[in-house]
Amino acid sequence: MSDISITRLETGSANFAQSLDAILAWNEAEDAAIHSRVMEIIQRIRKEGDAALVELTRLYDRFEVANASDLELSPDELKKAWEGLPSDSAQALMVAAERIRLYADRQKMESWRYSEPDGTVLGQQVTPLDKVGVYVPGGKAAYPSSVLMNAIPAKAAGVSEIIMVVPTPGGETNPLVLAAAYLAGIDRVFRIGGAQAVAALAYGTATVPRVDKIVGPGNIYVATAKKLVFGQVGIDMVAGPSEILIISDGGTDPDWIAMDLFSQAEHDEDAQAILISPDRAHLDAVEASIRRLLPTMERADVIRTSLSRRGALIEVRDLDEAADVANRVAPEHLELSVEDPESLVAKIRNAGAIFMGRYTAEVLGDYCAGPNHVLPTSGTARFSSPLGVYDFQKRSSLIFCSRQGADQLARTASVLARGEGLTAHARSAEYRIVESP
Amino acid sequence: MSDISITRLETGSANFAQSLDAILAWNEAEDAAIHSRVMEIIQRIRKEGDAALVELTRLYDRFEVANASDLELSPDELKKAWEGLPSDSAQALMVAAERIRLYADRQKMESWRYSEPDGTVLGQQVTPLDKVGVYVPGGKAAYPSSVLMNAIPAKAAGVSEIIMVVPTPGGETNPLVLAAAYLAGIDRVFRIGGAQAVAALAYGTATVPRVDKIVGPGNIYVATAKKLVFGQVGIDMVAGPSEILIISDGGTDPDWIAMDLFSQAEHDEDAQAILISPDRAHLDAVEASIRRLLPTMERADVIRTSLSRRGALIEVRDLDEAADVANRVAPEHLELSVEDPESLVAKIRNAGAIFMGRYTAEVLGDYCAGPNHVLPTSGTARFSSPLGVYDFQKRSSLIFCSRQGADQLARTASVLARGEGLTAHARSAEYRIVESP
Repeated sequence: MSDISITRLETGSANFAQSLDAILAWNEAEDAAIHSRVMEIIQRIRKEGDAALVELTRLYDRFEVANASDLELSPDELKKAWEGLPSDSAQALMVAAERIRLYADRQKMESWRYSEPDGTVLGQQVTPLDKVGVYVPGGKAAYPSSVLMNAIPAKAAGVSEIIMVVPTPGGETNPLVLAAAYLAGIDRVFRIGGAQAVAALAYGTATVPRVDKIVGPGNIYVATAKKLVFGQVGIDMVAGPSEILIISDGGTDPDWIAMDLFSQAEHDEDAQAILISPDRAHLDAVEASIRRLLPTMERADVIRTSLSRRGALIEVRDLDEAADVANRVAPEHLELSVEDPESLVAKIRNAGAIFMGRYTAEVLGDYCAGPNHVLPTSGTARFSSPLGVYDFQKRSSLIFCSRQGADQLARTASVLARGEGLTAHARSAEYRIVESP
Repeated sequence: MSDISITRLETGSANFAQSLDAILAWNEAEDAAIHSRVMEIIQRIRKEGDAALVELTRLYDRFEVANASDLELSPDELKKAWEGLPSDSAQALMVAAERIRLYADRQKMESWRYSEPDGTVLGQQVTPLDKVGVYVPGGKAAYPSSVLMNAIPAKAAGVSEIIMVVPTPGGETNPLVLAAAYLAGIDRVFRIGGAQAVAALAYGTATVPRVDKIVGPGNIYVATAKKLVFGQVGIDMVAGPSEILIISDGGTDPDWIAMDLFSQAEHDEDAQAILISPDRAHLDAVEASIRRLLPTMERADVIRTSLSRRGALIEVRDLDEAADVANRVAPEHLELSVEDPESLVAKIRNAGAIFMGRYTAEVLGDYCAGPNHVLPTSGTARFSSPLGVYDFQKRSSLIFCSRQGADQLARTASVLARGEGLTAHARSAEYRIVESP
């Protein structure tokens, strides 16, 4: 048996709302010192370009090159990494990549138009972004699956150039990551990281091309840099700790549920794993499984801390109430480990990804089911969506007015423009009126 | 003749790229004093709620109420404003609202699913945001058209509650704005503004409901507050000065082009109006029209300043090169004032809205063509899109694995998880393998 205390809550208790809020609370500390250091790095890259990039890479990554061009990996090096993979890894990555691509293709937005009787045409023209930067962390958080999840939707959107940056501390490259880059069809790879890599992608240097959007996870320096360059380039979300919320009707093997909670909790000590059930005996059984299985886990310490600090087992009156709690939490990952997931999913409004049925462990979605594993965290699923092809496409409105159509619209526009006191607007419209009104 | 100097550029000249960059340069100054004042206001609203809201509204808007509930306008007051409109304004607003709604309906995203042979189902569930806040500025920049453009797509998306905030300095309401709110079907209106209104919407008070996303333009305090509450709620873009870029083949009446440039320039002194043409004589003619028409304009001073400071007439070799320049600028509004706009539009990758043909003045899109007038500015059309229904919808990924499907995916996930050193992930997957591999 393992010593772990995990919060138990009941929706029926008077202070449930506050207790839940306390468990969910997550405030990324705004660190003024980090902010100003990152600002400084961005300014240096903008002013000194390649020279600063080489110097900062030497300083922070202990990786020294003679010229900025030496920071780039050749296509051959990527190919070699791919060819050096054990065959089971290569096979698994290929399966994952193919499924991610198939799902991404379904998300692709198409241009459309419609015509009005007077010949006026309205529409929406969809185009891919020109250039995209993918940030990949170095060191222990370097996940080949993240390379696939960030790059494949960009590729599916038709982005013409995908540029990956990955720090190689001490000069050490991660063959799995490079192999994934090869498989995903990334165009260029630079061995840079941190705020300096983000700044180089946002503003461009002689060696690193300026991109239109930067995606991918990173540490607090990377996240801060992304926030600061936003507007100059697009960025994906700035992610908080990873979360899972499981709704179980009591019919799933408690060991399965415990392990699903662990799979989230093992990410890091701030990760959040919550189980909701109307079945108190089931909650007890899962708690027992947690105690029994925890000592067998390689990352037991991280799991224990995460579950003690931010985990919870919540007893609800019924599955409808479970759905209400889920909508309030708006979790990144939501498992519906129930007999009839269809009727429950219809009640879910806020969740990044929904895993339906007892067999659909979140981990299957993390790697290879197809949908993206880059998902909104910290309740942002209330207003945002998984990373997808649509994040690498943009829309332009199209308006073509026939002579007659312009005449009609101009009369309306003229009244509204004069109502707003904008007379140049009004006169510009009135030039398009065919006969005087 | 009027004294105005407007920059002339030629793509053929050696320093064209730098000159263009200089004209386009726009850096919103980060004002540390404003930043910390806004932070303070947000903290006060979070801590003191309604009491702070009443006090700050008295202080900044010179509008005093006994209770926070007096800050809300009744549905009756909105209805009265609508009924009090002159009939031509009412008619014009109705035409605009109807066209905006028709276009918005086309943008609506639908849920989808697909099944695999082993019974696994993948999909995307689309749901509307629950609650949305619309910020409407008070005073001179209060545009009823903006109320329609921000609220109607939210309504079309199926948002269940739309809450408008609008400051009423000195207690004075704007009947046009209230009438537009009535027409757009806004659910609740509060007479509050500034950072305090943004904070109230983001965190909620006893009187003002917490929303999931805040949209709508505002001054630097509002913009700063929106940036600071981002993450707690969604926000739309933070807009820079408005811009138009016109490509003319020389065949459009120079007076029309001049007035189209004016219609952008009259917004404010930082607005940007640029004309591109391969026809030097046409550029001269437009410049002459500008000089001749400028003294007849009510907002001549604003137009003169804006055109002198940020305007440009650019001579290009041909229309292909004009498209290249447009893609580089990525303008908010792009007029293709040419004989064959179809062949030109196919070359445009970066633009918020594209106005095709000589009759399609930008102003028609500003008010009533149908597409949204909230558009990406300052080159952000490289990676972002007009405000649309999709901004008020979100997606959740759906994954349902059949027993057999889970078995297959689990084998792949297990290999990848072990490759990444995540053994709880691997074991969670392995529980779903039907027979041992």
